Amino acid sequence: MHAITIPEPGGPEALVWDEVPDPVPGEGEVLVEVVAGAVNRADILQRQGFYNPPPGASPYPGLECSGRIAALGPGVSGWAVGDEVCALLAGGGYAEKVAVPAGQLLPVPKGVSLTQAAALPEVVCTVWSNVFMVSHLRPGETLLVHGGSSGIGTMAIQLAKAVGAKVAVTAGSKEKLDRCAELGADILVNYREQDFVAEVKKATDGAGADVILDNMGAKYLDRNVQALAVNGRLAIIGMQGGVKGELNIGALLGKSGAISATSLRRRPLDEKAAIVAAVREHVWPLLDAGHVRPIVDREIPMNDAAEAHRVVEDSGHVGKVLLVAP
Amino acid sequence: MHAITIPEPGGPEALVWDEVPDPVPGEGEVLVEVVAGAVNRADILQRQGFYNPPPGASPYPGLECSGRIAALGPGVSGWAVGDEVCALLAGGGYAEKVAVPAGQLLPVPKGVSLTQAAALPEVVCTVWSNVFMVSHLRPGETLLVHGGSSGIGTMAIQLAKAVGAKVAVTAGSKEKLDRCAELGADILVNYREQDFVAEVKKATDGAGADVILDNMGAKYLDRNVQALAVNGRLAIIGMQGGVKGELNIGALLGKSGAISATSLRRRPLDEKAAIVAAVREHVWPLLDAGHVRPIVDREIPMNDAAEAHRVVEDSGHVGKVLLVAP
Repeated sequence: MHAITIPEPGGPEALVWDEVPDPVPGEGEVLVEVVAGAVNRADILQRQGFYNPPPGASPYPGLECSGRIAALGPGVSGWAVGDEVCALLAGGGYAEKVAVPAGQLLPVPKGVSLTQAAALPEVVCTVWSNVFMVSHLRPGETLLVHGGSSGIGTMAIQLAKAVGAKVAVTAGSKEKLDRCAELGADILVNYREQDFVAEVKKATDGAGADVILDNMGAKYLDRNVQALAVNGRLAIIGMQGGVKGELNIGALLGKSGAISATSLRRRPLDEKAAIVAAVREHVWPLLDAGHVRPIVDREIPMNDAAEAHRVVEDSGHVGKVLLVAP
Repeated sequence: MHAITIPEPGGPEALVWDEVPDPVPGEGEVLVEVVAGAVNRADILQRQGFYNPPPGASPYPGLECSGRIAALGPGVSGWAVGDEVCALLAGGGYAEKVAVPAGQLLPVPKGVSLTQAAALPEVVCTVWSNVFMVSHLRPGETLLVHGGSSGIGTMAIQLAKAVGAKVAVTAGSKEKLDRCAELGADILVNYREQDFVAEVKKATDGAGADVILDNMGAKYLDRNVQALAVNGRLAIIGMQGGVKGELNIGALLGKSGAISATSLRRRPLDEKAAIVAAVREHVWPLLDAGHVRPIVDREIPMNDAAEAHRVVEDSGHVGKVLLVAP
């Protein structure tokens, strides 16, 4: 088969479409013939040499895909060859085939094309596990989403609105904020022109955000703590603004706050399977009913993954950038 | 009645036993005739002028007491005049009488004297809410308790052992560590001579602590994150080592860790009542059965609260220092 390989870490041009051996599904795994993959920030870090795949994972990038089951490994039940699926991956989605633990498979929701289903697994599992399973967002509470127009952001807005929460977002342009508003966001903050702490407090009668989903890490740490409500929960899932930041423990303690920092990719198999099962139970009905949908910016041929990385690095996109297998 | 007042913030001598008006129990409150109170670190901060009582709370220090119900306010059921109780307070425990929301009352456990019951509410509620309700310590997991010989520490050791967890403690002397070992602590770290990160990792085959109960704040923040296991939870309940510290978000994210910082005193009434109810359900049977007991260092007359504060500030004590009403 062909896959995107990274012979040497570097810029987008480091991604090379090359012939590689087919993966073989192990115990409890299925082989998926990939129809589409999607780009995540972690793929860019992996390309740059900053984020090695966890032990046992495919060396090729790609944390999610859609496709058809081509073969079953030993001990797999509940799935059949030919099933159309999408899947959460520990790597290897930028390829024509990938071996996936069966616990990380999801059916393609009604009304979603097989290609577009590739936009779902990583964002749905990330948002559900962080905002709901870890941070317990409840109806009537306020969620602040940084990067509201990103793949994660557009899914977080939809899921939070679906459960009856109020949603604040930050983004860097009026166009992106307009797209967030279309998806249901209530409070729109242009981070280039406005202070999100002041805006969120103003829009919540001084209370602040009950849950914050953050991809900036150090750069926003202090302001995120300021923006939290009493009993607020900050979920950090990215460090685009740096790794080490000053934490005002007194401010956090004054509001009985909590901070979590999680990486879906590094979780062990049983935890991933538990998240996927929860997502199937709670989010898939919303997708099947059309209340929540994948937001796709564009589709790019997988062998031109370099172009897809340039698009994501330029941050001009809204939602997910897909890689369509040739 | 008499109460310890703080005419001017300062050293232990700032505590003045003075005549003050009796409190009047409001809607849903009872009046308790105090038999004993106990000293908490927060009382020392209040005496120094750094920790003002929350709005509506008694101006006098004291976050817990034991005694007899002397009167019921309107709307109280389930309690009667004469009942022997202990209580979690938002303030006012250094006094002959205190008004308490009924949701913060607990019966005196079997086999515990009315005086010694004053040692229970704050430590039991703090440990249960942080280690179990927020951080979900599970059987077989490892809890690291800083200040293992403190009131909080001695209760945390007992409760964690009672649910089948492994317990590591830090303390500053062999004598204190011996007392922790008698209560069941498995891993003993003298913080003056040993590095707790290295010792906890060594004793857990490199895994680290699943839950850490921390009273040091900034000074230990980085090392606490280092000492956490994968999916570890750091619960900060004090800032004896400073308020602002550098958080390595990358290290926390690498292990999908979480940090909470809570103050029992500042929680709203309904949350305190929920914690007290959980404690009554889960911890009181352990106390009634003698599996867990109050650890009292000494009893000092309440009108000499200054001496009690000196004892706690010198940190030579093990367990709680009680203030016995005259």
